[in-house]
Amino acid sequence: VQAEIITIGDEILIGQVADTNSAWLAQRLGRQGIRVGRMVSVGDTQEAIVQAIGEASRRAGLVILTGGLGPTHDDITRDALCAYFDTPCVFDPEAYRMIEEKFRRRGMEPGPFNRRQAELPASCKPLYNRLGTAPGMWFEENGVVYVSLPGVPHEMKALVEEQVLPALRGKADLPAVCQRTVLTAGLGESVLAEKVEAWRRSLPEGVGLAFLPSPGIVRMRLTALHDDPALTQAIDAAIEALQPVVGTYIYGYDDETLESAVGKLLRQRKSTVAVAESCTGGFLSHLLTTVPGSSDYFLGSVVAYDNSIKTNVLGVPAETVEAHGAVSEAVALAMAAGVRKLFKARHALATTGIAGPGGATPGKPVGTVWVAGDSEEGAFARRLDLSEHRLYNIRASSMYALNRLRMALQAGGNG
Amino acid sequence: VQAEIITIGDEILIGQVADTNSAWLAQRLGRQGIRVGRMVSVGDTQEAIVQAIGEASRRAGLVILTGGLGPTHDDITRDALCAYFDTPCVFDPEAYRMIEEKFRRRGMEPGPFNRRQAELPASCKPLYNRLGTAPGMWFEENGVVYVSLPGVPHEMKALVEEQVLPALRGKADLPAVCQRTVLTAGLGESVLAEKVEAWRRSLPEGVGLAFLPSPGIVRMRLTALHDDPALTQAIDAAIEALQPVVGTYIYGYDDETLESAVGKLLRQRKSTVAVAESCTGGFLSHLLTTVPGSSDYFLGSVVAYDNSIKTNVLGVPAETVEAHGAVSEAVALAMAAGVRKLFKARHALATTGIAGPGGATPGKPVGTVWVAGDSEEGAFARRLDLSEHRLYNIRASSMYALNRLRMALQAGGNG
Repeated sequence: VQAEIITIGDEILIGQVADTNSAWLAQRLGRQGIRVGRMVSVGDTQEAIVQAIGEASRRAGLVILTGGLGPTHDDITRDALCAYFDTPCVFDPEAYRMIEEKFRRRGMEPGPFNRRQAELPASCKPLYNRLGTAPGMWFEENGVVYVSLPGVPHEMKALVEEQVLPALRGKADLPAVCQRTVLTAGLGESVLAEKVEAWRRSLPEGVGLAFLPSPGIVRMRLTALHDDPALTQAIDAAIEALQPVVGTYIYGYDDETLESAVGKLLRQRKSTVAVAESCTGGFLSHLLTTVPGSSDYFLGSVVAYDNSIKTNVLGVPAETVEAHGAVSEAVALAMAAGVRKLFKARHALATTGIAGPGGATPGKPVGTVWVAGDSEEGAFARRLDLSEHRLYNIRASSMYALNRLRMALQAGGNG
Repeated sequence: VQAEIITIGDEILIGQVADTNSAWLAQRLGRQGIRVGRMVSVGDTQEAIVQAIGEASRRAGLVILTGGLGPTHDDITRDALCAYFDTPCVFDPEAYRMIEEKFRRRGMEPGPFNRRQAELPASCKPLYNRLGTAPGMWFEENGVVYVSLPGVPHEMKALVEEQVLPALRGKADLPAVCQRTVLTAGLGESVLAEKVEAWRRSLPEGVGLAFLPSPGIVRMRLTALHDDPALTQAIDAAIEALQPVVGTYIYGYDDETLESAVGKLLRQRKSTVAVAESCTGGFLSHLLTTVPGSSDYFLGSVVAYDNSIKTNVLGVPAETVEAHGAVSEAVALAMAAGVRKLFKARHALATTGIAGPGGATPGKPVGTVWVAGDSEEGAFARRLDLSEHRLYNIRASSMYALNRLRMALQAGGNG
């Protein structure tokens, strides 16, 4: 079964809100073995909605619409569906009873706009909405299933989980699609692609591979598009076979994040970390603290943006800054050692660099960053030559620092 | 001119990432008077891409594609465009020179996959990409403009701002749609809506108002949908009339951010700020340092996640933590005073709270946050009762702290 998703609403087309319902639906359908072939967003006009439904029905066996079911004049999905299926609108007493009940609980009476929400296309099966006033609708015609759902995310999700997916399961033997994502850090997309090229060529027929880069990390997604249990095993075997090729760069699988992978290692080893940040300006600390429970291992950090903080708080010798400049190996190492001592941490990370757009000096263009680490086992420092883009540089150097800590923890064992 | 946006990538269709590029593009095009009529997401297959381009070109004068321009085998947008326009791929020396330059700066050589990125359709005008290795492409055929852009958001945005919009402006007399956004912080959406209700009723016919809330801020967008110079003046007058109603809550207009508004005030007053963060974990510092040039006024911060850092580094008396708990008015005030003294700053901000999901204690549920400030002119502290959501709490308390500093700077004058 292939599905298409149609999102309805002017607010999407003017960019006021990004469509996040479609991504949720695609994930949820994918886990049931239903692949989404296309997503479309159209505005609040009957012509556009009817045209989009017609196009989708020629390609897909399942067409899901979200949005345009509210009580106001610009909500016209219901009328467009009546036009598309050439069916009249009829008052549904059960839908109205549920709307009345919701209003009565708040001590209110439904208005005429809400009565309109209880008028449904005669040919649909209503999907009564426990959480809101707009019922969903289910149509079948020429072997195609059409489902219309409210755009309010929690109402849409409840209808999908409680009514749409169970009904779809009853309709067809859905295949079990297998999808795994291998998460890597430390290699750029093209270097990684070259390293795994021979491995990729050995992937069995029917297993697809995609590279998904973002600053500092590259995800490799393996998908078996056909319903064959042997492919699931083949994907597991392929992931196993990847270990000797790029294993040290793999920080996790599927929904893991680099910051939570680092957190797990620190917690396992009952270890602690402190951070000294200059060019990353607090972002590295923020990444570490997005993880619930990070107070178990993250002690804190000093954001030493001004050079006086590097010397007065972190104890970087003024002569070192003078001799090498603030963006230098020596200063990065001294920052890491300084914060480790000050915070009594097992591990420390430090960043100093030119995030841009200003601040470049001869030999140190925008994007020059030194990342350093310090622990009882030793220290490291590495120069990165990143981009012209401030936020990319902040993010990529933070991810680099996290990944170096991950690799040290994984190699060192006792942390 | 009506535009359609086509987003390319399996990762969108399986719901791994939500498409946020399209919303940004729609906003940016809307400000130029270009309306988006449809957004479509298709997967990494030539058939789907070619079909989507064909459909869009029958309805729209401008077709924008994003994604599928990376160096790996699953990036096939370029080949699909060659097929659609029936044009061969030719090696572009200038594109390759720019790719080489990016690699050389990192002391690396481009690989064969990158060489492939410099092969472009013969009939396109290349849009050279300052920030990445994939050039964009511009085609014209039968009065329709087609623009293909990389999916990496910052590369896509830079190409649009620097090359696509200027070229579109040269092509057509685009209508001057007037849109202004009034940016507020410090009032919730419903309180703000009530305060401005009388003002809203006085808005002239043809001017629309929308409230756009996000953590800690509410934007009010005024739009004149018709191309009438009188409406532009009417919007300016309406914005003026808003000052006596909610002026102190307005931190800027249009693309301003709260962090850059605070930065401008600090720079104007030649003042400085330091930060002590507990529950915000570095995010408040990150916000301040997203602004280029923030080293002029931001000295740095201490992220005191562990209580030992609050006492040992910031000098919060251990008895204060003992008596009131780490999440308390007294500790927030002592953190602000401590970091101001340590960093010799004119202004200091501090946060301490329970971001969640763990950490709640009797009387202090998840979402309890104390925000404090300290300066020569005096100190303040305020308890916030936020939500169950960790990242919302981190963001909303950071925005609250920034806005308090903004209001103090604006009221105080000399900073």
